[in-house]
Amino acid sequence: MRIALGVEYDGRAFAGWQSQPHGNTVQDRLNQAISAIASEPLATTAAGRTDAGVHAAMQVAHFDTSAQRPLNAWVRGVNAHLPPEVAVVWAQEVDDGFHARFSAFSRSYSYFLLTHPVRPCLLAGKVGWFHQSLDVDAMREAAGHLLGKHDFSSFRAAECQAKSPLKHLQQLDIHEEDGLIRFDLTADAFLHHMVRNIVGALVYAGKGSLSSAGMKNLLAARDRTCAPPTFMPDGLYLTGVGYPEAYALPAQRQPARLTLWR
Amino acid sequence: MRIALGVEYDGRAFAGWQSQPHGNTVQDRLNQAISAIASEPLATTAAGRTDAGVHAAMQVAHFDTSAQRPLNAWVRGVNAHLPPEVAVVWAQEVDDGFHARFSAFSRSYSYFLLTHPVRPCLLAGKVGWFHQSLDVDAMREAAGHLLGKHDFSSFRAAECQAKSPLKHLQQLDIHEEDGLIRFDLTADAFLHHMVRNIVGALVYAGKGSLSSAGMKNLLAARDRTCAPPTFMPDGLYLTGVGYPEAYALPAQRQPARLTLWR
Repeated sequence: MRIALGVEYDGRAFAGWQSQPHGNTVQDRLNQAISAIASEPLATTAAGRTDAGVHAAMQVAHFDTSAQRPLNAWVRGVNAHLPPEVAVVWAQEVDDGFHARFSAFSRSYSYFLLTHPVRPCLLAGKVGWFHQSLDVDAMREAAGHLLGKHDFSSFRAAECQAKSPLKHLQQLDIHEEDGLIRFDLTADAFLHHMVRNIVGALVYAGKGSLSSAGMKNLLAARDRTCAPPTFMPDGLYLTGVGYPEAYALPAQRQPARLTLWR
Repeated sequence: MRIALGVEYDGRAFAGWQSQPHGNTVQDRLNQAISAIASEPLATTAAGRTDAGVHAAMQVAHFDTSAQRPLNAWVRGVNAHLPPEVAVVWAQEVDDGFHARFSAFSRSYSYFLLTHPVRPCLLAGKVGWFHQSLDVDAMREAAGHLLGKHDFSSFRAAECQAKSPLKHLQQLDIHEEDGLIRFDLTADAFLHHMVRNIVGALVYAGKGSLSSAGMKNLLAARDRTCAPPTFMPDGLYLTGVGYPEAYALPAQRQPARLTLWR
């Protein structure tokens, strides 16, 4: 039978999602924990990889097993075998047609950016940081050029393995509250480092180093070497994965607000 | 000259505030960092000690130095010498009559408690956890008995060094939002483990194991052995220290809300 899991993790504790020989990745820890519950070696497949330092409020993964366990064993039982920085938040049986990666039609990310002269401390690693305030209206105007279906090569890491640089960016909302800027992005899929590269370019727009027309030209250039640097992973969260309604998965978690006494 | 500092820290990274021979305490790290900026050995005095695992949104400390530095050097300069889990948030020159501990007339703490079947993950160590929901009205009713000036021996750790168990609890507010219960407490001073012991007793009240009359009797017993166990340090934050207005210190930080995608 096939089981789907919702998984939350603090990316600082791991060398990313993807299994590695040294073993300190989210996937390695999760595989070990579900294998312990099933008493057989199991392997998970996720909606998408996340880099070291990138968090998940809602990653979705699936695995196949012949072990008969109550669903709660795949949540609380598995959590007892996981380190504190990763937890399964739900488990659901799905039919064999479901695939965590190939059934997904969208991914959503949020990036939290603190703009303050003093670096974050209680939320170190949980938010990105820029030492001065940014012009949010200028960021929104520049962001408008990125919505829609485009060749995002200017925002693609050199090591990206995606077959095509064409992605459909359906959402790029920017909110500011209590000195925290939140970017909410949804696309069919994202290129490697695409969110961090977009945030890096938007920070340039917000500090006046990149005009709205400049952002349009940057996208059209389809050249990563023209773009501002990749922004730090600290504030980036995978917040949801879109699947056909037929699967009825609780696969979205909307962030409401982060507070840090600023 | 005497300098007062506002200090934020993540208590998980340190063996408490108070300097220790092994050196991994907030006070040790802060003393090293300000000494590096002053080029002379300096030592800080704080409003109050916090235990290992207890956080501060606003601890207040002072030190004396003959080094002439711009105030910003005591903030950003010192922060460059501190680990990511501690930061100075403000610095202010004060007259020699000011003492971080003896000038303080109140201390404020907040405790964040997650009530959810699944343990916290993205906020592991930042919130306390109870695996089922609690009756907040019952907690509020029981809490009412604790307000005012009382002998708090029933909520005092055996190793407490305070001269008197008489403390004046001025505030004990309980809010619930998004599955997080927040306790806000203010007193002239707190006994060792007093907040965590009060939260432990209130959790018993919330789950129906301690009645409102039982809380009243527990306080009157003045006997720690009658009380429910000390609650975990994870969700506890020192949020402010009260000083006479003449010092004009920015010594309060009100928490607004913590969000964790539940």
